[in-house]
Amino acid sequence: MTDANRQIVLAELPQDKLAASHFRLTSAARPAPAEGEVLVKTLYVSLDAANRAWMQGATYRSALKAGDVMAGGALAEVVESRAANLAPGDLVFADTGWQEWAALPARHLTKIPRLDPLTHLISVYGVAGLTAYYGLLECGRPKAGDTVVVSAAAGSVGAIVGQIAKIKGARTVGIAGGAAKCALLKSELGFDEAVDYKAGDVRRALRAACPDGINVYFDNVGGDIFEACLFNMAEHGRIACCGALSQYDGAAPRAGPRGVPGLIVTKRLTLTGFIVSDFYATRDQAVAELQGWVASGQLKVHEDVIDGLENLPGALVGLLAGENVGKRMVKVG
Amino acid sequence: MTDANRQIVLAELPQDKLAASHFRLTSAARPAPAEGEVLVKTLYVSLDAANRAWMQGATYRSALKAGDVMAGGALAEVVESRAANLAPGDLVFADTGWQEWAALPARHLTKIPRLDPLTHLISVYGVAGLTAYYGLLECGRPKAGDTVVVSAAAGSVGAIVGQIAKIKGARTVGIAGGAAKCALLKSELGFDEAVDYKAGDVRRALRAACPDGINVYFDNVGGDIFEACLFNMAEHGRIACCGALSQYDGAAPRAGPRGVPGLIVTKRLTLTGFIVSDFYATRDQAVAELQGWVASGQLKVHEDVIDGLENLPGALVGLLAGENVGKRMVKVG
Repeated sequence: MTDANRQIVLAELPQDKLAASHFRLTSAARPAPAEGEVLVKTLYVSLDAANRAWMQGATYRSALKAGDVMAGGALAEVVESRAANLAPGDLVFADTGWQEWAALPARHLTKIPRLDPLTHLISVYGVAGLTAYYGLLECGRPKAGDTVVVSAAAGSVGAIVGQIAKIKGARTVGIAGGAAKCALLKSELGFDEAVDYKAGDVRRALRAACPDGINVYFDNVGGDIFEACLFNMAEHGRIACCGALSQYDGAAPRAGPRGVPGLIVTKRLTLTGFIVSDFYATRDQAVAELQGWVASGQLKVHEDVIDGLENLPGALVGLLAGENVGKRMVKVG
Repeated sequence: MTDANRQIVLAELPQDKLAASHFRLTSAARPAPAEGEVLVKTLYVSLDAANRAWMQGATYRSALKAGDVMAGGALAEVVESRAANLAPGDLVFADTGWQEWAALPARHLTKIPRLDPLTHLISVYGVAGLTAYYGLLECGRPKAGDTVVVSAAAGSVGAIVGQIAKIKGARTVGIAGGAAKCALLKSELGFDEAVDYKAGDVRRALRAACPDGINVYFDNVGGDIFEACLFNMAEHGRIACCGALSQYDGAAPRAGPRGVPGLIVTKRLTLTGFIVSDFYATRDQAVAELQGWVASGQLKVHEDVIDGLENLPGALVGLLAGENVGKRMVKVG
């Protein structure tokens, strides 16, 4: 055990598509926790499309700058504590950034119960699973018999949204890129129908897949797919606005989808934007319900674990290109 | 009393801006009601931006075709009845179209209690007032202290939205075109602030008028003003999507506002499209509450009554150009 702390720095802000060359591997001294802080060891870093959005400007967090250690949430273990609420050995989920060690103020950290496998704390019981759970149930509000459409359907959130929608008695249609992924949506992830957005006219394909219209659209991508769904919504449909992946990896977002707000009015739609942490007051109940579905086999967990801190840049670039199925994370320590 | 029935026909569908020349005054025989129908005499025709939207394609009603008698809602009086639910002398609000007489199936018509002045049945207790009432209270849900922004603020709906928002303890900002109208928003309609969208950068003017952001935006116009509001929304803000006036008088709607859905997510906004008739189950309570506010002087009624069936085309063209203050209608009979 040395005193080094390997880090990945965002060396340069991307002007357009993010590439691994925007990052730099470096090493710093392991930090010492100040009073009220804990020293944590990074175990698994979560890869999320939002990582890219943070480079575009302020969102729900301040924008990243060139030279910053790349930000990112991770499952981490407390190694040294100078705070009353945490002790060595405790697990936390924290914005450690892309580095092996971090000294963090303890007051915003909450101990997470340990369970096996640890990776589930990042996937189904972590941000991905809770985002799917709250976004679908609180914002989408599917009823039995509804048609629920999810974009980025093979991704960490989409794969769980589809399964929860099935548990709630809905008919599910997943949107993903490529024939292979679409086959997998039906064979592995339990979707009733799949739409390949790389195969041509998404609006027409959705109309065929959703003859009675879309009652709930869980939007992970924005852009043209959002527009195609908007035109296929049923009256009184709900759109859960979770993210705009299609808009993150480029310059500033383009003009928005046609049909806003005209179709929102005539179809009497409700669009709700949400961020998972807004719902954390009831996180324990949500995790308990997810655990029940996993235990009964109704909810299958799909993870994509890559090994090694140095592989983080490539893992994020690949995630933005849609190469993962299920929750992507990088094992660091 | 002759047997003639003067009518205004939509002679030609507009390809771009609507003009009076798209209409033609004509005369037909007065219709005779069939079994189950009533013959009504048109008293006041309501002018609404939606009249123009009906020419673009199917909305919540089927699209208008060239050669149709122009559609339009009106306050009308039953003159002859072949239905059990209505008798001569009863008042109804019906899609009579732009004509002096209409024979209509009685089963979708409801008798309206007579009150003085009759014009209030079209303005504050009609579609305009109820649209303002339900859109603001059910979709916008303002709380005391909120900043409420309304576009087309001097129009039939906007003028009432602003006043109800004040009654609910909100701070109100109206958007309208031109210095004269903006002055009137503050002097006559009770708005706290006014933004002139013809005077330049609306996004910046809104930022100045709403330093803490917009909690509720009541959208009548869509387009660039919608976008400017979207960028100024406060977190957890609500947008009541009532109409897209800016998009009706032209060819097909353009690309949508930037920031959709990205800003919906990061600001956790809720957008709700609505059509007033969805709420008609509770119309009696709404009218009673509106009557209370009018009686107490908290809600002032602004009407713009034009005389003569032949003036309907010009009245609609002028409404689309924003020349009216308050509810515009045409006295026909």
